[in-house]
Amino acid sequence: MKINIPETDKKRVVIVGGGFGGLKLALKLARRKAYQVVLLDKNNYHQFQPLFYQVAMSGLEPSSIVFPLRKAFRKKEDVYIRVTEVLAVHPDRQQLETSLGICNYDYLVLAIGADTNFFGNEKIARLAIPMKSVSEALFLRNRILSDYEKALSTTDYEERQGLMDIVVVGGGPTGVEVSGALAEMKRYVFPKDYPELNTDEIDIYLVEGANRLLAGMSEQSSRKSLEFLTNLGVKVRLKTMVTDFDGECVHTNDGETIRARKVIWAAGVKGAKMEGVPTSALTRGNRIRVNRFSQVEGLENVYAIGDIAYMEEEAYPQGHPQVAQVAMQQAVCLADNLSNLHRGRELTPFSYKDLGSMATIGRNRAVADLPGFKFQGAFAWLIWLFVHLFQILGVKNKVFIFLNWVWNYVTYDQSLRLIIRPRVPKSGEVEVES
Amino acid sequence: MKINIPETDKKRVVIVGGGFGGLKLALKLARRKAYQVVLLDKNNYHQFQPLFYQVAMSGLEPSSIVFPLRKAFRKKEDVYIRVTEVLAVHPDRQQLETSLGICNYDYLVLAIGADTNFFGNEKIARLAIPMKSVSEALFLRNRILSDYEKALSTTDYEERQGLMDIVVVGGGPTGVEVSGALAEMKRYVFPKDYPELNTDEIDIYLVEGANRLLAGMSEQSSRKSLEFLTNLGVKVRLKTMVTDFDGECVHTNDGETIRARKVIWAAGVKGAKMEGVPTSALTRGNRIRVNRFSQVEGLENVYAIGDIAYMEEEAYPQGHPQVAQVAMQQAVCLADNLSNLHRGRELTPFSYKDLGSMATIGRNRAVADLPGFKFQGAFAWLIWLFVHLFQILGVKNKVFIFLNWVWNYVTYDQSLRLIIRPRVPKSGEVEVES
Repeated sequence: MKINIPETDKKRVVIVGGGFGGLKLALKLARRKAYQVVLLDKNNYHQFQPLFYQVAMSGLEPSSIVFPLRKAFRKKEDVYIRVTEVLAVHPDRQQLETSLGICNYDYLVLAIGADTNFFGNEKIARLAIPMKSVSEALFLRNRILSDYEKALSTTDYEERQGLMDIVVVGGGPTGVEVSGALAEMKRYVFPKDYPELNTDEIDIYLVEGANRLLAGMSEQSSRKSLEFLTNLGVKVRLKTMVTDFDGECVHTNDGETIRARKVIWAAGVKGAKMEGVPTSALTRGNRIRVNRFSQVEGLENVYAIGDIAYMEEEAYPQGHPQVAQVAMQQAVCLADNLSNLHRGRELTPFSYKDLGSMATIGRNRAVADLPGFKFQGAFAWLIWLFVHLFQILGVKNKVFIFLNWVWNYVTYDQSLRLIIRPRVPKSGEVEVES
Repeated sequence: MKINIPETDKKRVVIVGGGFGGLKLALKLARRKAYQVVLLDKNNYHQFQPLFYQVAMSGLEPSSIVFPLRKAFRKKEDVYIRVTEVLAVHPDRQQLETSLGICNYDYLVLAIGADTNFFGNEKIARLAIPMKSVSEALFLRNRILSDYEKALSTTDYEERQGLMDIVVVGGGPTGVEVSGALAEMKRYVFPKDYPELNTDEIDIYLVEGANRLLAGMSEQSSRKSLEFLTNLGVKVRLKTMVTDFDGECVHTNDGETIRARKVIWAAGVKGAKMEGVPTSALTRGNRIRVNRFSQVEGLENVYAIGDIAYMEEEAYPQGHPQVAQVAMQQAVCLADNLSNLHRGRELTPFSYKDLGSMATIGRNRAVADLPGFKFQGAFAWLIWLFVHLFQILGVKNKVFIFLNWVWNYVTYDQSLRLIIRPRVPKSGEVEVES
């Protein structure tokens, strides 16, 4: 069966993935009208990953940090959005296999991003909680809240500690932000919600394999984020690896055993899998090797951008960092080059312009490395807030996130502490997912 | 095992259910400090049922219309909230059996509310969508959006219509409000989101067994709501019953067959089931018969309030309507009587004061029956908005709902059209629910 998209006389660009890269590219191409644009994603929304941790910490609602794809393309002609799973690519036939049928392409852009990397440890993969989607962030929120409810009716001391303590693995931006936010909940929220528990006894651990936090940022930011977290009471373990987790206890390579039922896994990513991409094109971290024009090595008319793409340039001999900025800049460059292709012009190679990076640890505490300008503390925190507000899609999202932040800041109280369990389809019921 | 709640020298009132009645009662008792208060609910939040339909229609987020129970009882002493399932009551031993263990009570208040009534039709119970919780409202939202996505890739005309058309069963406030909201989405939202579909062909049916809509309200409101709905394009079928639904087609008693995969069931409620309540105390609609002091017939120290309670008074010889107002007034009366009991004073019998009822059909369209004053249209709609805003718990909820309403009103666009699928726990994973 073929996917139901009309054929036109324009060439068709199929984009897989509506993340930072895919969405940007689709918007640019839609505006230029040279191609028919088909955007495929398994969700009907774009997710703003930098704020997942605030959803997990009950500070924001998922709806504030995601944006309906259809809404982004209203009144755009020749753009077709399909919510579907892409099962495989067949470069020889210029076709994609999707759960909605076969989809032909003239040009294919893989913007499929990265998945959580458990480094082959299947036990940890099964038991730890990743945070690479809003669904996972919501799941984490529910887990934390249900475990505190359970702790109330647990009289055994050790068992109760296991329900209350949390181990965060990975000292990158996600790990730092999550553990900072947890430490603030411990301080400001849990004592009010659970007066029956001794919330002083909650321990938040942050475990990082390298000898510093935020390894992708400056030494100064690493040092300062460690100081911020330590002041908030987070137990930071550097040069430490989690070797095992059985759902009850976490074991590290230096022999420590931490009793904790929740392990938040933010230790690394690997390129998302796509059936049909030749293994010869795959490189370190399961990324797809592309040239400076984002063309996938060894394939015709197939491109890759964003976290999934591995591109070497002079300043980045080991590939670019897997961050939103790279994805968006590659999207802009590829949109230009597809226009150039259409008009028979020469292509321009991609070159990454680093705009800096930031991480927030808590109220009035953030670190920022901007080009030629490093700073930490309350000002960095304010800048962080406004940069993220500015980047998020949709005026309503901006307004509602801003109000939520002001509210949480003034009241010291994230108010979305709701364990909303999905209604599970009953047996025999018409299936929702196709 | 016993539930982990300290014994004090105060008598313990256990309240089952944190709905309008249970929450109100718990708040009143907490303030008076004469009793230890234990509030049991299977969710950690109170739900504001009158706005479920707006969650289903993507107009509001669940978080705006629910409120964390713990937050409502902050700084209250001798109040214990437990998120648990109550499995049975043992009136002979003055105990409850819960999923967290045995819970003793001195006084028990059942405020367990009502469930959807499918009138014994198991097929419909399995396939139709009820709307008695935020989880169900979210499920409905996801179903509507996924079906429209599916319709895009369905080339068969009949099958596509089945995905697009919706049948609402029951012409009470919920049915009227849902079908009105669906008709507005058809008019303002779907054409922009799904330009590929012919949204003129969407049919919304409202099926009601009686000869008028809103049977609990005045003739005038019934007539006007029918007029509003008809103008919005809703196909209203009065004096009609749904006799069968197989997941594809709806059959009615006058021989009509409607091809529709979504049936929203708002046709009636019945008292929630509670193991251990003697069948002799149960009456019509599975309600529990109580006297004017809310005492359950034939049981010592057991009370029932709200939708589950069946109380006859002069003006209401067939029991009170199952609405929030009755539950809250009964809660206040019972709180007073428990105080009276504590002080050895005489009890006062309950008497319902009807404050009127309202239903909204759409933008600027509502009907209101206030005591001695009936009106319809834009003014009723404004009153409806403010009454509901006023009743919802929490300042933040009020602010956010108000802003959402203003936003949706100005833009003609509910913006929460996101199919956020729950992350299903992986096999072998630590179970979330206790």
